Amino acid sequence: MEAADMAWLLAAFAMVLLMFPGLAMLYGGMLNGRNVLNMMLMVLSALAVTGVVYVVIGHGLVLGDSLGGAGIIGNPFEYTFFSDFMTDDEAGGTFWGAFYILFAAISVALVASGAAGRMKFGAWLVFVALWIILVYCPLGHWVFALDNPETGTVGGWMRNKLGFHDFAGGTAVHMNAGAAGLALAVVLGKRKMSPGRPHNLPLMLIGVGLIATGWMGFNGGTAGGANFMAQYVILTTLLALCGGMLGFITIERVRDGHATMLGLGTGAIAGMVGITPVADAVGPIGAIMVGFLAAAAAAWAITWKRRHQIDDSLDVFAVHGIAGITGSLFATFFANPKAPGEMAGIFFGGHFSELGHELIAIAATLVYSFAMTFAIAWVMNKISPIRVSEADEEAGLDNSIHAESAYDSRQL
Amino acid sequence: MEAADMAWLLAAFAMVLLMFPGLAMLYGGMLNGRNVLNMMLMVLSALAVTGVVYVVIGHGLVLGDSLGGAGIIGNPFEYTFFSDFMTDDEAGGTFWGAFYILFAAISVALVASGAAGRMKFGAWLVFVALWIILVYCPLGHWVFALDNPETGTVGGWMRNKLGFHDFAGGTAVHMNAGAAGLALAVVLGKRKMSPGRPHNLPLMLIGVGLIATGWMGFNGGTAGGANFMAQYVILTTLLALCGGMLGFITIERVRDGHATMLGLGTGAIAGMVGITPVADAVGPIGAIMVGFLAAAAAAWAITWKRRHQIDDSLDVFAVHGIAGITGSLFATFFANPKAPGEMAGIFFGGHFSELGHELIAIAATLVYSFAMTFAIAWVMNKISPIRVSEADEEAGLDNSIHAESAYDSRQL
Amino acid sequence: MEAADMAWLLAAFAMVLLMFPGLAMLYGGMLNGRNVLNMMLMVLSALAVTGVVYVVIGHGLVLGDSLGGAGIIGNPFEYTFFSDFMTDDEAGGTFWGAFYILFAAISVALVASGAAGRMKFGAWLVFVALWIILVYCPLGHWVFALDNPETGTVGGWMRNKLGFHDFAGGTAVHMNAGAAGLALAVVLGKRKMSPGRPHNLPLMLIGVGLIATGWMGFNGGTAGGANFMAQYVILTTLLALCGGMLGFITIERVRDGHATMLGLGTGAIAGMVGITPVADAVGPIGAIMVGFLAAAAAAWAITWKRRHQIDDSLDVFAVHGIAGITGSLFATFFANPKAPGEMAGIFFGGHFSELGHELIAIAATLVYSFAMTFAIAWVMNKISPIRVSEADEEAGLDNSIHAESAYDSRQL
Repeated sequence: MEAADMAWLLAAFAMVLLMFPGLAMLYGGMLNGRNVLNMMLMVLSALAVTGVVYVVIGHGLVLGDSLGGAGIIGNPFEYTFFSDFMTDDEAGGTFWGAFYILFAAISVALVASGAAGRMKFGAWLVFVALWIILVYCPLGHWVFALDNPETGTVGGWMRNKLGFHDFAGGTAVHMNAGAAGLALAVVLGKRKMSPGRPHNLPLMLIGVGLIATGWMGFNGGTAGGANFMAQYVILTTLLALCGGMLGFITIERVRDGHATMLGLGTGAIAGMVGITPVADAVGPIGAIMVGFLAAAAAAWAITWKRRHQIDDSLDVFAVHGIAGITGSLFATFFANPKAPGEMAGIFFGGHFSELGHELIAIAATLVYSFAMTFAIAWVMNKISPIRVSEADEEAGLDNSIHAESAYDSRQL
Repeated sequence: MEAADMAWLLAAFAMVLLMFPGLAMLYGGMLNGRNVLNMMLMVLSALAVTGVVYVVIGHGLVLGDSLGGAGIIGNPFEYTFFSDFMTDDEAGGTFWGAFYILFAAISVALVASGAAGRMKFGAWLVFVALWIILVYCPLGHWVFALDNPETGTVGGWMRNKLGFHDFAGGTAVHMNAGAAGLALAVVLGKRKMSPGRPHNLPLMLIGVGLIATGWMGFNGGTAGGANFMAQYVILTTLLALCGGMLGFITIERVRDGHATMLGLGTGAIAGMVGITPVADAVGPIGAIMVGFLAAAAAAWAITWKRRHQIDDSLDVFAVHGIAGITGSLFATFFANPKAPGEMAGIFFGGHFSELGHELIAIAATLVYSFAMTFAIAWVMNKISPIRVSEADEEAGLDNSIHAESAYDSRQL
Repeated sequence: MEAADMAWLLAAFAMVLLMFPGLAMLYGGMLNGRNVLNMMLMVLSALAVTGVVYVVIGHGLVLGDSLGGAGIIGNPFEYTFFSDFMTDDEAGGTFWGAFYILFAAISVALVASGAAGRMKFGAWLVFVALWIILVYCPLGHWVFALDNPETGTVGGWMRNKLGFHDFAGGTAVHMNAGAAGLALAVVLGKRKMSPGRPHNLPLMLIGVGLIATGWMGFNGGTAGGANFMAQYVILTTLLALCGGMLGFITIERVRDGHATMLGLGTGAIAGMVGITPVADAVGPIGAIMVGFLAAAAAAWAITWKRRHQIDDSLDVFAVHGIAGITGSLFATFFANPKAPGEMAGIFFGGHFSELGHELIAIAATLVYSFAMTFAIAWVMNKISPIRVSEADEEAGLDNSIHAESAYDSRQL
């Protein structure tokens, strides 16, 4: 790897790190004032636990040679303790070891939204470790592990056998987190009390801002260097961000008569989710449209969900699941073959079979993620209840299980 | 373009993106608590609308071959839909396409400050599109478009015919935004109610912090690569930031008897505004002085303005207009010819005609920006009032036109 | 210096700049609501004053040829006014000039924590200038100035004669700041009023997030380029961050029965402090352990300190002193010779004398920093009291000496 490529990747890494405090603030700000710190602790401890699990066993599960050549899961002992990463392999392996920790950790951090205000903190820490191993790592293997004909190692089935298009983790990160957040919310059950209004929208905005910057590192870093692809995906990510903001507030304006900050921020995230799998595959106008449609679809899904009383507390399924699917399907039909991803949408000369591949990939991701997450949470709950007591929930978790409060209200 | 240069520029891009949430927080924090979200929506929607307008028509207006060779405005059809940016031109064109969107968007986002707490949101979205096309694009063309003798294309009159010095957009971005914010404030008229005190100064500080980091990307990215110029301008930008903080609180201490956080933050911004046009043209001590004087001048202008009851709500004319002019004039007299900009100030062997060029550039920018912005707002207002109703204004725009509030006060 | 290395360093610089608003929010959020802005002003003015002092005289004191070849202090006139940095030395000198300002400034900004809520602001500005010259510069010289046999220049005694291991300023920055904060707290005396609870923990979290990102630039930038060392230290810094969060909340859980956000954030900082001197010297599992133990040691030290009623208001000695010492001592015993720092811990074939070198370096740093800081504050206090009046302290410094308040409480 050239030093110039590494220069960009190092900077991209630091930006992606901003997504963790960003997500803590986004989710914390959207909750009522009694469960803010609990949510922040869930998001940040997700990074802490993932760091350890990933170094011990995770990287092999994701990128190791497929066990039995099946493309289902990598060899967990291939990168044990990251000991290979103490010497320079001249291919940036040490860097990618660190970068992949952030990919895994942000995925499980998103899942925290499904547990807002009602999960025991110790149970969450255990859940994170199990989820990384049993849900994220297989899905990561399916998408991120490439066959290597030279060394004879086998990668994931989705990427290599199915051959579908996913630029930067639309399935393994976003759709996965969306389905898993929903599953965890279902196992936990609805919140007892009315969730209340977002207690601090400027805090949410800070979160969105840091996440957007991190996303440039996330998508731009996936380009693998300071190359044309990196330029291209920061452009399309920016345009999808713009489109996403406009898409969500347009729906709001039509539906409710007014645009909101909550909507603009949600749309910004949904727009970037939508472009993530296809940032290399659509043109500039296409990127604006992906953002707009992904955010509009998320807005619609949030309305639908509320009507059906599913307590996916912070809309992770709508914003990460539905928006991600929207982006993928858009590209299936409208991918511009002139874009550097060289994918031809069905309306631009592409083959109709591409739609089948995308639908298989999406369905496999959603079904596996939902089912396995449900199983983990259900089994954990059977062994020892993972939901806090009713009294703790009513008091708010900040006070009841962390013995602190976000603000000292007498002093504000 | 070398990969190493692109590596720095990609990072610089992500930093500049931080300026948008930063500005939303800076302005939101300085307002009273009833108009916070409205201001944040104005700043962020400015990015969203600019992204679309710029891709469709803006880039050609700024960087296209001058219509009629007059140096007034570029050919709007030269970069339509950014379609040229789907392939690698090996000169970083795709990157610059994205970077210029941020330049345009931050300029109009600054103008939002003139409309604090009293403009209809739909009218703002229309205003942004018109302002980018009619105000920013011509001014950008004047300063950013270079003549190219090889291809025979003609650039902007200010840069090429007048030959004045502007490192990173002192005129097209800062003086322009300052004059336009003032014009918009004048058309809208004063706020009915007392503006009230800044509702959240720590929020303002977060904004200043993100903006300062973004500025390193803004000025450092303008250097065009990971070169000596980039090193130099981050040094001078840092020193002007230091000087600006000291300059503003010195004036405060002398005038009011105490230094404030509001002052320190305002001085930090003013110092960086001051150095932006001349970051390559002054020495290290000169950079401290530019920051100090620009901030002191802004402090003086704020006092003067309050006395004259102009409701430039968030001081954009003082902080971006006056401070920018101060920096430009300082360099006219004191530019150090040993600095990489190779400009000799009048006291260091430079020609007195330089002062004339600077004054023409400043005056042209201020007059054009003020007049055209005034005209846009005035015409829009004739067609349909752009100011909210008195009842909405009294209730605060967060509640009256966005149906939400920044904080759920029962929960803090 | 290669352009690719500079590309990473420029980005690292901008990240380190984020540490200043980050620290202002971390410390501001931890204080009660009446001294928030005062703390923020102290942190940011530390940057402003240091910028000026460092350009005038500081860089020579740190990196200049040792006066008398003694290795005690550099020649103050070697880089006066940074005039050498106006031309390209092709070794990145101009960049390092800017980067070193941030190193010096963050050190003194940390010291502000010892003065929370009770120091005159004017006295603080004078203290910053004196402390940079009399405390930071000598310690920086000891550690950062290398002997150069080619030019015959002599560097600092610790780095060159003692030959101890310090990757990125564990002594000159962190242990130094810890001891100095304690000394300043002792001279000022305890706060009159109960310090009160942290008024805004989400604000603290924002601070931790920005600081963590900055730390990637701090440690990664110290690697000097986009090389393997940079990859390695961002990996170990990330893992120590993870370990630090887990270490602190583990101690809390055992000791108090619950994990807190205050603890998680404090542990994150302590973990990164611990890894800073040894980021190149331990393996991945070692990095997790360094973070865990450094945070656990800090947690223990905070408990101990409270019992002894020392008003080191924001725990700078525990978090920066004790955690830094823990990291250094860990590596003395457990440094992995396969890591790129090529240091062998005593249990991995290293010489026992290394322990002596480390202890001498730590003791020299702590004693010099504490004694000289105490002397500066004591002498200043004799000349004119540096502590605010009792009435001002009771009213809270935001109101009494800055005439503003962090929040307009009627509007939240």
